[in-house]
Amino acid sequence: MNTQTVTVGKKVSFGGFNIPVISGPCSVETRDQILTAADCAKEAGATILRGGAFKPRTRPESFQGLGLAGVDLLCEARDATGLPIVTELMDVRLLDEFLNRKVDLIQVGSRNMQNFDLLKELGKTQTPILLKRGLAATLDEWLAAADYIASGGNEQIILCERGIRSFEYSYRNTLDISAIPALKARTHFPVIVDPSHAAGKAALIPSLAKAAIAAGADGLIIEMHPNPAQSWSDAEQALSAQDLSSLIHDLKKVALAVGRDIS
Amino acid sequence: MNTQTVTVGKKVSFGGFNIPVISGPCSVETRDQILTAADCAKEAGATILRGGAFKPRTRPESFQGLGLAGVDLLCEARDATGLPIVTELMDVRLLDEFLNRKVDLIQVGSRNMQNFDLLKELGKTQTPILLKRGLAATLDEWLAAADYIASGGNEQIILCERGIRSFEYSYRNTLDISAIPALKARTHFPVIVDPSHAAGKAALIPSLAKAAIAAGADGLIIEMHPNPAQSWSDAEQALSAQDLSSLIHDLKKVALAVGRDIS
Amino acid sequence: MNTQTVTVGKKVSFGGFNIPVISGPCSVETRDQILTAADCAKEAGATILRGGAFKPRTRPESFQGLGLAGVDLLCEARDATGLPIVTELMDVRLLDEFLNRKVDLIQVGSRNMQNFDLLKELGKTQTPILLKRGLAATLDEWLAAADYIASGGNEQIILCERGIRSFEYSYRNTLDISAIPALKARTHFPVIVDPSHAAGKAALIPSLAKAAIAAGADGLIIEMHPNPAQSWSDAEQALSAQDLSSLIHDLKKVALAVGRDIS
Amino acid sequence: MNTQTVTVGKKVSFGGFNIPVISGPCSVETRDQILTAADCAKEAGATILRGGAFKPRTRPESFQGLGLAGVDLLCEARDATGLPIVTELMDVRLLDEFLNRKVDLIQVGSRNMQNFDLLKELGKTQTPILLKRGLAATLDEWLAAADYIASGGNEQIILCERGIRSFEYSYRNTLDISAIPALKARTHFPVIVDPSHAAGKAALIPSLAKAAIAAGADGLIIEMHPNPAQSWSDAEQALSAQDLSSLIHDLKKVALAVGRDIS
Repeated sequence: MNTQTVTVGKKVSFGGFNIPVISGPCSVETRDQILTAADCAKEAGATILRGGAFKPRTRPESFQGLGLAGVDLLCEARDATGLPIVTELMDVRLLDEFLNRKVDLIQVGSRNMQNFDLLKELGKTQTPILLKRGLAATLDEWLAAADYIASGGNEQIILCERGIRSFEYSYRNTLDISAIPALKARTHFPVIVDPSHAAGKAALIPSLAKAAIAAGADGLIIEMHPNPAQSWSDAEQALSAQDLSSLIHDLKKVALAVGRDIS
Repeated sequence: MNTQTVTVGKKVSFGGFNIPVISGPCSVETRDQILTAADCAKEAGATILRGGAFKPRTRPESFQGLGLAGVDLLCEARDATGLPIVTELMDVRLLDEFLNRKVDLIQVGSRNMQNFDLLKELGKTQTPILLKRGLAATLDEWLAAADYIASGGNEQIILCERGIRSFEYSYRNTLDISAIPALKARTHFPVIVDPSHAAGKAALIPSLAKAAIAAGADGLIIEMHPNPAQSWSDAEQALSAQDLSSLIHDLKKVALAVGRDIS
Repeated sequence: MNTQTVTVGKKVSFGGFNIPVISGPCSVETRDQILTAADCAKEAGATILRGGAFKPRTRPESFQGLGLAGVDLLCEARDATGLPIVTELMDVRLLDEFLNRKVDLIQVGSRNMQNFDLLKELGKTQTPILLKRGLAATLDEWLAAADYIASGGNEQIILCERGIRSFEYSYRNTLDISAIPALKARTHFPVIVDPSHAAGKAALIPSLAKAAIAAGADGLIIEMHPNPAQSWSDAEQALSAQDLSSLIHDLKKVALAVGRDIS
Repeated sequence: MNTQTVTVGKKVSFGGFNIPVISGPCSVETRDQILTAADCAKEAGATILRGGAFKPRTRPESFQGLGLAGVDLLCEARDATGLPIVTELMDVRLLDEFLNRKVDLIQVGSRNMQNFDLLKELGKTQTPILLKRGLAATLDEWLAAADYIASGGNEQIILCERGIRSFEYSYRNTLDISAIPALKARTHFPVIVDPSHAAGKAALIPSLAKAAIAAGADGLIIEMHPNPAQSWSDAEQALSAQDLSSLIHDLKKVALAVGRDIS
């Protein structure tokens, strides 16, 4: 099936010849951290900035994110670098705040893939949506979740494979690489891959990222932190700016090998 | 660990000697249907009425439930029979409506087990919460979700095992019977079982329900429809009133064998 | 579907009113250990003695069992107590040795459920076979494996559910209790349950064993060691003789509640 | 960890700069079929011929393979083309027949990954072994199975990732692409990928094969049939000779992009 393009910000398109890389830290932590991260991401060749302001943490005592203050810092980083931003919306009551701040790409996280009231509200907007696959969601269920958004009138949807839960315990999740060609045959929505959450370990990310491009992914979302060891969350899976830069360099070669380019 | 009791309505307690059975249709469909179902449930020996008003359906074109009108019909059935009611809240924005109607037990469904904003709001109420296990949630994650509610101040929590996703395709989900004793060793919240969603097939429900009691469950939630073949949703897993009555009769024997009673 | 009876030894029948309990240690360790275990098993009410002589251990450096010398010790314990014996055959080349020793019930372990050459050879014998479910086998595959034996002419097959692999890490495997009623509807082979391998922890075994009886199981196989703490393998899941005795006492009550008896 | 090289036949090496492609039909069917397949495989750029002579089929009434006559036909195809051959050994009693025929690479299938007696016997040979991952085996278990072979003295082991079982039903198995870099960090055995069994559908194979190369695989094993529609087994996943040729052409580009070559 032909893939439609979804444009984020003014000029970053998913679903065409170019393969954008989204990067940035797991969480927005401080003004300095996110501004530095944005510079690093841009410098390395990423074209969209990620950063969690509302964090879906398993335990209530874990750091829950800076909230709207974090979104504001992302906006400031956007202004400074020109990079569009993506961040996760968990609470439907905050949608207007996201729209007011013109978040360029609103992420629906794995745990909310079937938060149908949230999906319905997002369907009424015209903002591009990054819909992550649920941890144990079938492709049928994932596409049905996208239909909740699309049937409301918003077809600006990007699907993100981020690993499924399996019995293997030596990595955080199991990247389902087969989902890429299987989705391509069934939907016109672009499909991107999050190797960071799939792996949960920085050392595995380059292989998974290259595999994703080779398998036909339309984009990547990769966690990078200016100082990985001091990351407030998911430190084990964060690349350094240097690692990211080097990885994007390598990814370009793989992209060219399959007739595309990273950009 | 000692199990605390959670009382729903004026006199139905979970976690003690008595094992309550919650029953009713998958969805509230019509006034006549829910009033009849309530009578049947009471007649059969169930002590709480269930019925979905907001239905988390995989596909947007499926019947989504009657909404608040459905909750109102449940309240009418409660008035008619004296049975406390349980129904699922999906959208945090509707919590006040549920509180205004004095829903006796608010269900958090599997898909929302990690809808943390919803959990946090429920933690501020004093209403008993029925927290279903996510489709692929570990016990650690499930207990952490309960902590989101409890840490807000509401300890009136009942955990509901309803089957996990596995590779086996001949039943809807795989009932994780081991979760019952494993949770009993780790938490003081009562644990009940939903054999209907675990099985997805009426024929398997009696065996699973008996197994749950034998394994130490503190309650059951079983789908029953006055006319199963005409159920608007999940028809295959609905018991008839006659089936339910016969099952509860059999369950009493198993309950007595493990030193308890159905009631 | 009506369950056929499979008789092991002269008088222990699976598939009828009575529910036999098989018990004994994970591994045959010493003459003294297995003779003591046999006495304890008999005293507690078990009617068949189990003991591994060939052990399918994950790692090559783990204790691999006493081999045929272990089978000989089991035979001695059989002579001493009158209990029929069950032990696992891994290597098809040793089948004649098992037949010569008149092993009463030959176990095919989970890892060999699809060792088709072994199954075919067993199909040519008239010895009862205990066919354990593979760790990730569907019911279809399991029944097809049984067909490999049956199509050779040996219908003396007992199926044993022993837990499947899932994402949950707090117990060794996930007991698939639904398999019991689902198999009962599809096959005439008796179905028994191994709560010991399903749980991997002694504390969970009583609940799982009771659940299995309540769900309709035709038998149980439970690990018991005269001195659990000193077990050479799987020490964490072994019951003491006292525990077993107490459990069988409790199981009788559950069996009576579902119209059967332990014996 | 540095990968050792394993040489199959006189000159095909796994684990170095070159990435060999193994190809051929699921089953050896007829003399004409396997000779044609061997020619096609060689013509397309494959350097080892595969073909099943002993087939581990789920159901006993399915085609079970030609047996040793099939191995003889493979040897004839080897003589005609110069391609080394790989075929699966299921029954330990036939090992000498395989050794007598100088099978170049002996495959241990998924169902036999933990057939420890077979592994021990293979450990006493000097023939290269292709050890497929069990359907639900962890990396720990897989490496422990390899240790059963290696501890006997045979270190000529190639690991083959072929998909794991998950809840997703739209493809046969779920290719665990993360296993490649994870194994590379833990073992010196070469790791290859079988996209055919992972996918179960021809249309998905090119994407998975490219992903495997990009992720660092040391080889591929791909099913190809001279006339896929008439394949006696697994017809849906067989590529045509033309498809294979075209795929290897594309794979070369990806291999070059990661600093290697197909050969």
